[in-house]
Amino acid sequence: MNKIEHIGIAVKSLKDSNALFEKLFGAKHYKIEEVASEGVKTSFFKVGENKIELLEATNPNSPIAKFINNKGEGIHHIAFHVTDMKSEIKRLKNEGFTVLNDNPKVGADNKLVAFLHPKSSNGVLIELCQDIKD
Amino acid sequence: MNKIEHIGIAVKSLKDSNALFEKLFGAKHYKIEEVASEGVKTSFFKVGENKIELLEATNPNSPIAKFINNKGEGIHHIAFHVTDMKSEIKRLKNEGFTVLNDNPKVGADNKLVAFLHPKSSNGVLIELCQDIKD
Repeated sequence: MNKIEHIGIAVKSLKDSNALFEKLFGAKHYKIEEVASEGVKTSFFKVGENKIELLEATNPNSPIAKFINNKGEGIHHIAFHVTDMKSEIKRLKNEGFTVLNDNPKVGADNKLVAFLHPKSSNGVLIELCQDIKD
Repeated sequence: MNKIEHIGIAVKSLKDSNALFEKLFGAKHYKIEEVASEGVKTSFFKVGENKIELLEATNPNSPIAKFINNKGEGIHHIAFHVTDMKSEIKRLKNEGFTVLNDNPKVGADNKLVAFLHPKSSNGVLIELCQDIKD
C-alpha cells in the first residue's frame, strides 16, 4: 500500500464534469468505462503517476447516487494500489480496520477492488485495488 | 498542474489519526508542522510520489474546525503541484474557476498556496501549491 492509484470524485453529469476537469488539467480524459454491477459510469484523467476517476450514477440505487443525495458532488474515495490483496486485507483487519469486501470484486480499469469502511478510517472511504494481471 | 502534491484530510485529533494512518500505511508520519495563520496543526505521510496531510484545528475559527462541524472528519482537499502559480491562477480564472487567493499565501511544507472554490470545481476544494524555492 505504497501508492495512490486514483482519487474518485462523485459527479452528477459525467459529460459536464469531463469538460470541467479538462479545463482544470488542460488535458482530456483518456477513457470512459461503465461498471454495471456498481451502477456507475466512470471517466479517467491521468495526473502524474495518479489518476482522477469521475463517477456518475447510472441508477438511483447506485452508491454514487446515494452519496450525492447525502453530501452533494465531491471527493468520494481514495484508492491505494496493493500487490497482494489477500494479505493486505488480513493485515488491515488485524489492525482494526473494517473491510467491506472480504471477497474483492471486479471494479473499473481492470482492477480487483475492496473497500474499508470510512468509520474505521477517519471518515475516508478507502479502496484497495490490485491489477487483475498481477 | 500535472502532479497531485498531497491529499488533505481533516481530523479531530492529530495524535489519534497519526496512530491510525501509521497502521494503514505501515509507516510513520515524517513531520509535524503548525501553520498558525490557518489555525491548523498538520502531519505528513509519504505515499509514493504523493503525500497525505492530516489537519487538526488549533482554534474554533479554523477552516478545519468549521469543516468538521459541518461534515465530520474526512477528505478536505486535493493539492496539485504547480511550477508557475501566477500564470496558473490566470489560466484557471480565464477557464471560469473561482480562485480564492489572488495573492497566494504561505502554507505548510514550505509552499506558496492558493485555493479554488469548491463551487466552481464540482464540490472539490482544490489547492494549488508551488515550492517556495521554485
